[in-house]
Parts: sequence; C-alpha cells; structure tokens
Amino acid sequence: MINPWDGLVELREIGEFGLIARIRNRLPAYLPRVFQGIGDDAAIASLSPGNDLVSTVDLMVEEVHFNLALTSAHLLGRKSLAVNLSDMAAMGARPRFALISLALPARIRVESVDEFYLGFLEMAEAHGVSLIGGDTSFSPDRLFISVTLLGEGKKEILVCRHGARPGDDLYVTGTLGDSLLGLSLARTLQGKSPLPDEKYLLEKHFNPIPRVQEGLALAEKGLATAMIDVSDGLFSDLRHICEESRVGATVFAQRIPQSNAFQSLSPALGRSGWQSAVRGGEDYELLFSAPPQKASEVMALARQWECGVTCIGKVEPISHGIIIRDEQGQVGPELLKGFDHFAAWEQN
Amino acid sequence: MINPWDGLVELREIGEFGLIARIRNRLPAYLPRVFQGIGDDAAIASLSPGNDLVSTVDLMVEEVHFNLALTSAHLLGRKSLAVNLSDMAAMGARPRFALISLALPARIRVESVDEFYLGFLEMAEAHGVSLIGGDTSFSPDRLFISVTLLGEGKKEILVCRHGARPGDDLYVTGTLGDSLLGLSLARTLQGKSPLPDEKYLLEKHFNPIPRVQEGLALAEKGLATAMIDVSDGLFSDLRHICEESRVGATVFAQRIPQSNAFQSLSPALGRSGWQSAVRGGEDYELLFSAPPQKASEVMALARQWECGVTCIGKVEPISHGIIIRDEQGQVGPELLKGFDHFAAWEQN
Repeated sequence: MINPWDGLVELREIGEFGLIARIRNRLPAYLPRVFQGIGDDAAIASLSPGNDLVSTVDLMVEEVHFNLALTSAHLLGRKSLAVNLSDMAAMGARPRFALISLALPARIRVESVDEFYLGFLEMAEAHGVSLIGGDTSFSPDRLFISVTLLGEGKKEILVCRHGARPGDDLYVTGTLGDSLLGLSLARTLQGKSPLPDEKYLLEKHFNPIPRVQEGLALAEKGLATAMIDVSDGLFSDLRHICEESRVGATVFAQRIPQSNAFQSLSPALGRSGWQSAVRGGEDYELLFSAPPQKASEVMALARQWECGVTCIGKVEPISHGIIIRDEQGQVGPELLKGFDHFAAWEQN
Repeated sequence: MINPWDGLVELREIGEFGLIARIRNRLPAYLPRVFQGIGDDAAIASLSPGNDLVSTVDLMVEEVHFNLALTSAHLLGRKSLAVNLSDMAAMGARPRFALISLALPARIRVESVDEFYLGFLEMAEAHGVSLIGGDTSFSPDRLFISVTLLGEGKKEILVCRHGARPGDDLYVTGTLGDSLLGLSLARTLQGKSPLPDEKYLLEKHFNPIPRVQEGLALAEKGLATAMIDVSDGLFSDLRHICEESRVGATVFAQRIPQSNAFQSLSPALGRSGWQSAVRGGEDYELLFSAPPQKASEVMALARQWECGVTCIGKVEPISHGIIIRDEQGQVGPELLKGFDHFAAWEQN
C-alpha cells in the first residue's frame, strides 16, 4: 500500500514561509472577533465583555497517538481539533479560537499538509472556531501536533471537575469502548472495505464527534455539578472527578452503555463486555454528575441529543472509594487504572 | 561528559499524572485572574474588560532548535517561554497566561523535567505570567516543546507588522549576531570555562532576555508604527514588515549594532562583520519603525533601557525594494534570505 503521506513534492521545497502562505490562503477572508490573525508575531482577538477565557491544549505524537498508515491527513486534521473541542465541551464553554503547532518531517507531502488543514478548518467551521495562529517547524523523524483552543464562558456557569457532591447521579453521553474497538479493527482490516457496523466503529476512533452542544447545554441550564470528557478510559476520568471533588462513586457495570456495533463485533476481536468498554479511552464522551432532583431535566434535555445519555451510577462520600458493581457483586480496583502513554509504549 | 538529561529515575515510573502532580506542586498557591488552572479539562482565566486577547505559540524541537548536550534543562525552560515573550513584546502586549505541551522521551530524567519547569516558572514570574494549562505526552525519541502565550492589550495601541510608512525610521534594540556567535562558541568550548566576553555571548543564545517592557512602552506611547522581533535574522524579519506594510527599506550596514564581545570574538570564529551579525537569528531584539518626528521621543525612551536602541535605516516606497548600503555602495539581495529549519537540516 502506498502511504499517501509520503511523496516527491517535499516540504523543504516550499519552506516554512511557503507553508504559512498556504495556510493563510485557506482561511476565510473574514474571521469574527479577530483583529489580527495568522501572519504577525501574535494574534489579536477579543472575547465578549463579562465572559471568561477558557483555554486548553492537546498534544498528538506520531506512533503514540496516531499512525499515519491507519488514518488520512484529512481525518487527522479533524481529530486534532476535535480532541480539544471535547475538553472545551467538558467545561460547558463555547470554543472560539485555535492555534496550532506542527513539527513536520520533510518526507511528508505538501498535499498531505493541505489535507490536514482542510480537515482542521472543516471541524473549526462546524464549531464556530477561527484559526488565529500557529508555528510550524521541521521535525527530523516524527509528526507532532499541538493544538491550543481558546473559548469563553461565564465562570459562574462553567463546569469544573470539583463540583460533584455525594448523592449526585453519574451520567455518560453516547456509548463507550467503540473507539478502542475501532482502532483494533483498523489494524485487522488490511485494505478490506468495512461493513456498516465496522464503519461505525472506525468513525468513532478516527473521526470522533466532540459533544460541544451537549456540554454547553448542561452548563447553561445549570444541570451538571462536575464534568470531564472520557479520553483516558471511564474509570481514569471518573477518578479525576472524585479526586478533585473529594468524593467516592459507585458505577453499575450493567449500565455502561455499549453500541450495537460494539456488542456485535467485540467478541470476535476478543474485547467483549463492559470491562473492554471502559478500558482504553478516546471515547470523547462526557461524564458528568447532576443532583437527583434534576434527573428528569437531564433526561428531557438528552432526548434532543442524537448521542443520548445514560445514568451509570452515583456519587458517594469519599470514604466509600470508587466501586464498580456487576451481577456478581463488587469488582476489584485494578480496572480503575487509566491509559498512560508512557507506560503503554514500554509494554509494546 | 555525562548528559544531565539522562538518568536512572525515568519518566515512565511516575507516568503522565505523576508528572502533572509535580508541576502543580510547583505553582504559586494563588494565580491572579485565574479561576481554574492546571488540573481540569481546560483553564478559566479572565482578561480586563475592554482589553483584547493576544495569543502566540512557539515550537521547539530537539536537535532542530536546541541540543540537550549544549544547554541545561533550566535554561531551556527559561528560553521556551522567553521566545514567546519576545513575540508578545513585538505586539506591545502584556503577557498574562501560558500553556505548555511537552512530548518527553522516557530516557529524560524526572529531575531534568523539574529543572525545566523551574526555569519556565522563573521566567513566567519575572513577567507576571501564570501557567494555566498544558499537555504532556510520551515521545519515542525526541523532546518537543510547544508553548502558547496569551496576553492582553487594546487593539488600538497594539503594534502589528503592517503599519510602517515610507519615511519612517527603522530601529533595532540591543545588538545583533551575539546569539548565533554564542551557539558557535558553545560548540567549540568542550567543557572549558568561558571568559567574560564568551559568557556574554553564551547567555545571549541560551538565556535570551525578551524585550517585553520595551515593546510595551513603544506601544503605550504610540511611537512604533510596525514592530517584529528579530528571530530569523534581521533581513528575513524586515522583509515581513515590508511585505505586510507594502513598503521597501534602506538599511545602512555600518549602523548595524554589534556588541564589544561580538567584535572581539567573531574574527576567531570566522564570523566577523555586519554580514554575520544579520545572518542566522535568535536575537530576540525588537525591530520597529517610527515616524521621524518621533525620533527624539524614541531616543529619550531608549535611554531608560539597558539594551539601548539604534536607528539602522529608513522605510521607503515599495518600488524601492529592500536595499542594504555599506561603504562600497549597495549590497546584493542574497543576504536577505532568512533562516529556515526545513532547509537548514538538509544542508547539515
């Protein structure tokens, strides 16, 4: 298979400034709230008065977070912004501006860089985000992508990790485990056309949809007391909420939402059951807590969402710890360990 | 020589969350204007009402922008923020918040990462900057640093590249060429203790001082019509001002400011004369234009600056092009080429 990232027209021929010119040419002529975008020492943009600045950054490293043989430049561009949008969603903030750092190996085709930016800008436009700056550099061997996303929201309604209270219900949007299963699947496909269920899982991994509107609605209606996006695996992310809120939690294993595609294809890939659905990560769903008296409001709101929502457990006092219950009773805490790229590379 | 970056206590032992905990422990207990800093999906910070957001990002790749055998972790931490502060200075904006992406090879000692952050936070504190977020990842081979810096300023007084007008004087702060000479020197020292002049040049490369106060003052007093920081070499950066302002320029070679250390040590390193002072880059001085009727005001302001300022030429109509004049007359444009990491790696 020809790797579409490689090619004869190479980056060093156009250089860094040539690359910047190509990016500028792809931007809309008018960017709202932007007074100075790409092409100066820094960008100038403004947020609405009374709104607070929300900022997040996400780093993706070739062969750690993605494999160029498995994804397209276009999808990688989309995803590099989507993972940041997911963080913004988990605050209930409105995304506004993005900056991007790219370290590019000289072997990468200029056309692939163009496709990357097209995907990035497509995702940006879908969420009202303006690309306002960046830096590009040569990289001797590996593609690095770091995206900073800036957003806004009133600090009184933004949702942090530290607001969960004992008695709150725990919810998760969408379904879990699809992304990791999609990645496993991609490694076995070897050029075969995917069937519909397979395509669904591949999309969940390579083209995730951040829950921006869902996060915004939960914050604006004051329903969520704590929120996080599920990127390292359900229990790793739940642990962050519990640590920051100084609470414990009970999760009911049989309630963990699994898609039809996951249920039908996971056994053949040796990854069936809720244990597989919560391991791994990159789900980019929202995990949040809400008071029980808001349950009907949460469910009413979620009926407007394509992704849906599931109540998977409840918040407990800190002395309770984090406990999973399945049909056989309580499950050991070794599953609580999240995904760690430092450790994962070592095991490969 | 033992490379202080390598060691037995390795990053994979503490993992990503252990690393984040170490960073959080080093931060001041109170960060002004920060409602939620490191430890959530995104940070929440606010700018003053009526002020505009200024944002910049800079990327540094191991063996492209720095060599771990030549610098210390502490100095690299300082410099990774200083290069961003220099961009902020070139807008005349006030730096406020930083986010950092680090991709770390497992071979790097945890202590080196700590030293890196100490240097970073030292530079941050000196300029009133709060570290509010970041992402860390494993990197299979190479250290990669991306820093986003957010600042504020009123858009009416911020200084872009596009405001230079024919007739304006061209100024540069400090001296040029020291940084590149310092790097050449570092490669020849091989463990010898540097003499005072040598130490001066090494500091200019490995521990540059961004001209933040100088840039702010020029903007606040409305003196500069266009401004840029000299990071790619004088003529490469001047070309950016000329392109964005649609003007030409004349630079008088004999006026290009050279330090005593540069003049005394450059001949032995084969890099004497103004041609060497303007080639290369990483000077992190400010290049700006100002109307001739403001000349005395500029010089009065600069008398308060330790770095000083030099008028090196003037802005011309676009038809004039960019011209350098030395004692022999006009100098060819091949010197106008800036530094390009894509091209430079190829030549190595």
